[in-house]
Amino acid sequence: MGMFFGVDIGGTEIKFGAFSEAGDLLEKWSAPTDISDMGRKIIPDVARHIRQYTVGKGVREDGVAGIGMGIPGPVDKAGYVRTCVNLRWNGFNPVEELKKEFPDVKIAAGNDANTAALGEYYRGAGKNYDSMMLITLGTGVGGGIIMNGKVLLGAHGLAGEIGHVSAAVPEKEQCSCGNTGCIDQFASATGIVRIMKRLLKERKQDSILRKQEKISAKDVCEAACQGDALAVRCIDICMGALGNGLAYFSHAFDPEVYVIGGGVSGAGEIIISAVKKAYREKMFLIQDGADICLSKLGNDAGMVGACMLVMNGG
Amino acid sequence: MGMFFGVDIGGTEIKFGAFSEAGDLLEKWSAPTDISDMGRKIIPDVARHIRQYTVGKGVREDGVAGIGMGIPGPVDKAGYVRTCVNLRWNGFNPVEELKKEFPDVKIAAGNDANTAALGEYYRGAGKNYDSMMLITLGTGVGGGIIMNGKVLLGAHGLAGEIGHVSAAVPEKEQCSCGNTGCIDQFASATGIVRIMKRLLKERKQDSILRKQEKISAKDVCEAACQGDALAVRCIDICMGALGNGLAYFSHAFDPEVYVIGGGVSGAGEIIISAVKKAYREKMFLIQDGADICLSKLGNDAGMVGACMLVMNGG
Repeated sequence: MGMFFGVDIGGTEIKFGAFSEAGDLLEKWSAPTDISDMGRKIIPDVARHIRQYTVGKGVREDGVAGIGMGIPGPVDKAGYVRTCVNLRWNGFNPVEELKKEFPDVKIAAGNDANTAALGEYYRGAGKNYDSMMLITLGTGVGGGIIMNGKVLLGAHGLAGEIGHVSAAVPEKEQCSCGNTGCIDQFASATGIVRIMKRLLKERKQDSILRKQEKISAKDVCEAACQGDALAVRCIDICMGALGNGLAYFSHAFDPEVYVIGGGVSGAGEIIISAVKKAYREKMFLIQDGADICLSKLGNDAGMVGACMLVMNGG
Repeated sequence: MGMFFGVDIGGTEIKFGAFSEAGDLLEKWSAPTDISDMGRKIIPDVARHIRQYTVGKGVREDGVAGIGMGIPGPVDKAGYVRTCVNLRWNGFNPVEELKKEFPDVKIAAGNDANTAALGEYYRGAGKNYDSMMLITLGTGVGGGIIMNGKVLLGAHGLAGEIGHVSAAVPEKEQCSCGNTGCIDQFASATGIVRIMKRLLKERKQDSILRKQEKISAKDVCEAACQGDALAVRCIDICMGALGNGLAYFSHAFDPEVYVIGGGVSGAGEIIISAVKKAYREKMFLIQDGADICLSKLGNDAGMVGACMLVMNGG
């Protein structure tokens, strides 16, 4: 055995974590992602960073047991990435590429939402549960599902990508996917801004956001935390839509816990309580339903989960 | 090793199947369910029937390898049934009870929708798939989910019970669960009759069902198969609602195949094509999506799956 590395490869930044044999985080750092040359420099960069670490710490190469990677796109079981816009990869296998640099090291790759879910499951908010669904609220809504310690991939690698499930809320505007009323239209950062702008336009009520020219989801969350009534209403609508969706998942798949992560979740308890309120109202068959809580690992979840992926074969 | 028995215990009838060591059905029969004495006679009846078979065939008791049971209610991993209205069981463990009769035989019990799903997965329409969702269209809508050969139980034993997921169809009438717009309000036998009556009332269009005083779901399906335009419209609405629901499951859980069973599915291709049409219209992210097909085992699915449960530990 030996140490592990978890690497979360994003479109602008690569996050590295060095882990002990037991999977405890020893050190973390990050570096910008160089996507030039159709992303062909990314894997050599990853290898260079890991080597710099091992050389610096006096770790021999046979002291590295495994390297796991999180990729911002669908990854098949063999590590193949058909297309990943953010990294400019087309028909590329990062596992095979990294294997060329570390032929004797166990290497694995998975979708970053799924590795984030694994991270929360093994080391974060999902630690005490058997089945978990991570929902990431960022520019869009994504997620990952863990059942009995394993990622649920789905037939097309899309399990957990719940953004385009119906929120069962009346809506006339069309979603980017072509449908209307998707969870993504409400619970994403984009959705929050959209609903806030609509409320400011349709209602006369005062709001600290009226003065602002440009509004971000963070502004809305902060205004809501400060008690701005219109911003609170916006969060209730947006997170209510997510709560509806989670109630339907509970009726169909009945996980033990929903963990809410991603940038928007930084707003904290105000998000969770709005989700819970709508969720409980829609839960008819299951009295208590699932637990709903905030992610614990935040931005580290994908990197930690990438390590868990190669450690546990999730 | 030895032979197996699969037993599907319903509220009015118990279905028995005798299976070879390889899980092939040798013989099947059924008997009425005696629910008197708070259902305490059911398990002794099951034992008696199995013994009659083995004695009749000259099979020694150590020639029985396993007995699996399907129960019309939630069953926990240890076989405990907290409440099963149809069998009048309250806090009862049918596995422990049957074990008293066959101490050296492997015994297992599961929810009947889940055993039906196992049956279709191993021996029916789901045979060539890794992940499958069975949807049973009966008085209500139920179902079971199989992932990698195992039943997905869910935290509260309710996974697959999709009747009360939103069909994302506008609806004012309230569902029995208290919500509005549930799949159950459309795709169940009750739902089909409800929508047909509404269409007959609201539209002037002629229909062969106008003359009938009492209308059953079977009548509507038969009229639709004969080309009755209003009945076809009814099936399109009801199965369209189910198709919507399945599209959302695909976005969230992405199974390989949906198998449609239960009494209503007896209408055949007219059901499948209406479900497929709505499903394809809602599928934006996954071009091809899941396969959708009719169940193959029909009423035998639960009994076959009960055998698979004890054979494969599903």
